[in-house]
Amino acid sequence: MGQGRFITLEGGEGAGKSTHARRLSARLGEEGYGVVQTREPGGSPEAEAIRTLLVTGEVDRWSSNAEALLNYAARDQHLRNTIRPALKQGQWVVSDRFSDSTRAYQGVTGGADMALIDHMERVVVGPTRPDLTIVFDLEAREGLSRAGKRPDDHDEHRFERKGLAFHERLREAFLAIAEADPERCVVVDATAPVDEVAETVWQAVASRLIA
Amino acid sequence: MGQGRFITLEGGEGAGKSTHARRLSARLGEEGYGVVQTREPGGSPEAEAIRTLLVTGEVDRWSSNAEALLNYAARDQHLRNTIRPALKQGQWVVSDRFSDSTRAYQGVTGGADMALIDHMERVVVGPTRPDLTIVFDLEAREGLSRAGKRPDDHDEHRFERKGLAFHERLREAFLAIAEADPERCVVVDATAPVDEVAETVWQAVASRLIA
Ligand SMILES: Nc1ncnc2c1ncn2[C@@H]1O[C@H](COP(=O)(O)OP(=O)(O)OP(=O)(O)O)[C@@H](O)[C@H]1O
Ligand SMILES: Nc1ncnc2c1ncn2[C@@H]1O[C@H](COP(=O)(O)OP(=O)(O)OP(=O)(O)O)[C@@H](O)[C@H]1O
Ligand SMILES: [Mg+2]
Ligand SMILES: [Mg+2]
Repeated sequence: MGQGRFITLEGGEGAGKSTHARRLSARLGEEGYGVVQTREPGGSPEAEAIRTLLVTGEVDRWSSNAEALLNYAARDQHLRNTIRPALKQGQWVVSDRFSDSTRAYQGVTGGADMALIDHMERVVVGPTRPDLTIVFDLEAREGLSRAGKRPDDHDEHRFERKGLAFHERLREAFLAIAEADPERCVVVDATAPVDEVAETVWQAVASRLIA
Repeated sequence: MGQGRFITLEGGEGAGKSTHARRLSARLGEEGYGVVQTREPGGSPEAEAIRTLLVTGEVDRWSSNAEALLNYAARDQHLRNTIRPALKQGQWVVSDRFSDSTRAYQGVTGGADMALIDHMERVVVGPTRPDLTIVFDLEAREGLSRAGKRPDDHDEHRFERKGLAFHERLREAFLAIAEADPERCVVVDATAPVDEVAETVWQAVASRLIA
């Protein structure tokens, strides 16, 4: 089975991250790889408790710095309890959001202290960087409309309430992150039909991590 | 009424911080000062939600780095929503624990990344440093025994469960912090009777901040 790989899916609201976390994990399983599908914020019991604080409630309940600190506290637990143990066992890890979301949402768009985010990244993530990051790219308006239509049973709408201008800056932030790190990141056009996007994602994974 | 001052009370479990937060706040009120008595982790609604994550549950549920990050997320909210508004209105703020607790518990004793704690301190606390910090000093064994006897209605015992060796290192950590910053810190012998300790605390406040 070989070495486990760490893949993260990034992008704004409604871009298709959760859809393709499922699709990619299923495909990896079919190909015979052991897979742990996970998500952020969250992905371990303690981190999920922090997630609840982050994604529910009033839109302005946290400052951007507090949000960034909460995200890295959750990420620390997620790495220790879920991601690193899985990679150590040779499993692949597919995470629906990871560090780029903190950088894009809290840092670039929210104005949190960027040097502090860099410092937290070094201490908390250290060498456990993703082998591949797929950035799902979509107009903010279209993503919010998709997220709004999605049938769901939860109350996780805090970030969707931040308004169109926030989400437009967010899209640019993800594109800038991908452009700055082309070795790790692949931008995928998320307007294509789901099956087509799934195939593009699979080709990126296969060519970069398997071939 | 003049300028508000910021006083923090620090020390290990059962040393008398909460007792003297009440006593000192009452005394300041009697002397005609406006006072906000508060505590950490917590002191604002969002910060109290983080407090619950920190002080309840399994003793090893969080890594020291995650604990430090959670403490600064809570501190950011506490400063924005409680401490800075009160000081701006000329009120005195008496906080039962503040940054020194993170340094002593998570940093020195817990092994969290000290440079990251310094960085969070600069970004989150910045110029809002305490004008005076009272460190209540007591043998760890005696403090834990007092904390154990205290009648209470809560489940906030997570740190008390860390064992005697942890609490002995903690005592040394608080003493070292006070020694390194004598302009700000006063160490008080917490073995004396409560009324005597209260008088010592009041003399420190009066001589340093009022006289
Ligand atoms: N390529 C696509 N074309 C049309 N609809 C899509 C496409 N991909 C996903 N969707 C639909 O858009 C909605 C949002 O997708 P999904 O939940 O995967 O996005 P997300 O990026 O995880 O969103 P969030 O950031 O809110 O978690 C879902 O209803 C999903 O079925
Ligand atoms: N000087 C003292 N002599 C004897 N008992 C004391 C003294 N000061 C406080 N106590 C008692 O010790 C117990 C712990 O005091 P207190 O709750 O003020 O400590 P604390 O530092 O806030 O503890 P914790 O860290 O657990 O919050 C209480 O029951 C209190 O009445
Ligand atoms: Mg999703
Ligand atoms: Mg107390």
